Amino acid sequence: MKRPGGRSARVRMAVRQATLAELAEHGYSGLTVERVAERSGVHKTTVYRRWGGVEGLIADALELAADEPWPIPDTGSIEGDLRGIVQLVRSGFADPELGPVSSAFVAAAVQNEAAARSLHDFLVSRNEQSADVVRRAIERGELPDVVDPREVIRVAVAPVYYRLFVAHEPVTEDDANRAADAALAAARAGVL
Amino acid sequence: MKRPGGRSARVRMAVRQATLAELAEHGYSGLTVERVAERSGVHKTTVYRRWGGVEGLIADALELAADEPWPIPDTGSIEGDLRGIVQLVRSGFADPELGPVSSAFVAAAVQNEAAARSLHDFLVSRNEQSADVVRRAIERGELPDVVDPREVIRVAVAPVYYRLFVAHEPVTEDDANRAADAALAAARAGVL
Repeated sequence: MKRPGGRSARVRMAVRQATLAELAEHGYSGLTVERVAERSGVHKTTVYRRWGGVEGLIADALELAADEPWPIPDTGSIEGDLRGIVQLVRSGFADPELGPVSSAFVAAAVQNEAAARSLHDFLVSRNEQSADVVRRAIERGELPDVVDPREVIRVAVAPVYYRLFVAHEPVTEDDANRAADAALAAARAGVL
Repeated sequence: MKRPGGRSARVRMAVRQATLAELAEHGYSGLTVERVAERSGVHKTTVYRRWGGVEGLIADALELAADEPWPIPDTGSIEGDLRGIVQLVRSGFADPELGPVSSAFVAAAVQNEAAARSLHDFLVSRNEQSADVVRRAIERGELPDVVDPREVIRVAVAPVYYRLFVAHEPVTEDDANRAADAALAAARAGVL
């Protein structure tokens, strides 16, 4: 996939917006280059040439999403920050607009290796940003400095993803807080 | 879907074995009634009549799997038991024969609501069995009796599923042990 710059940046944004809108409406299994081309007003052959196909469209949409700032909470305590992050994940998937798109990315990654690599890179970037709340807690002396910041984030968010995409159970606000508190207790105990 | 009994129990097992073999070889996206019929030697119209389609085949395979005993560890300590359970999950997905089938169930559930309900029921049953190790630990006085046994299991296994099916990262034996130890630390702290 070429990285369009300058003049073609608008084309890239149009295609990306169309990809996200199509994912929201039809999910991964309904995503086609034809529909994205029609919706974006970009010629089908251009989409094929630059993005290669559905995999490239998903990778590009995720790459742009990774660049967006993630509103990391800064509540002054690691408990509040960690709960805030897990609630961001929960509410993102529950959001009527954002939720179906985010779920489509997870579904795409389970079915397609290129999408899996894109989602992996996206989550590495997201978790790296989130890990700052743990680093700040270590600096404030709230957590021992042997703690692995990224592992604390992983363990904190994992139960939300497990409920949504593996066990197919609802996730309440309490469930999300409990997941955050569990990761924090493990970090305090020196396990993470 | 009818529940075949007596004479037709052999038909059910043949179809189930064929479903599992097809899932192992071709994954969920390659599962068809035609292939299962051919492989099992059961007539296609019989498969359609009794199982309805691919969703019914998956539901039935998972239902039979749920009845199989899960070799719950009994090491004498909650630490050993919980590590044992998370290792069972990890090694199951890493197994060359079992792994692709189990992964196909997770992939099917992300794409199909009926498969999601079947996997949900299967995991409720599995986690209910696993929760016995937590109940025994409470009886032995290793954990406070306010602990929710099923939530301890959920939090213990979630990081393994998160790595495999969301973040698409490897899961080492150490990663699995750490996930078990984190859930235990949280349970001891009274969070779960």
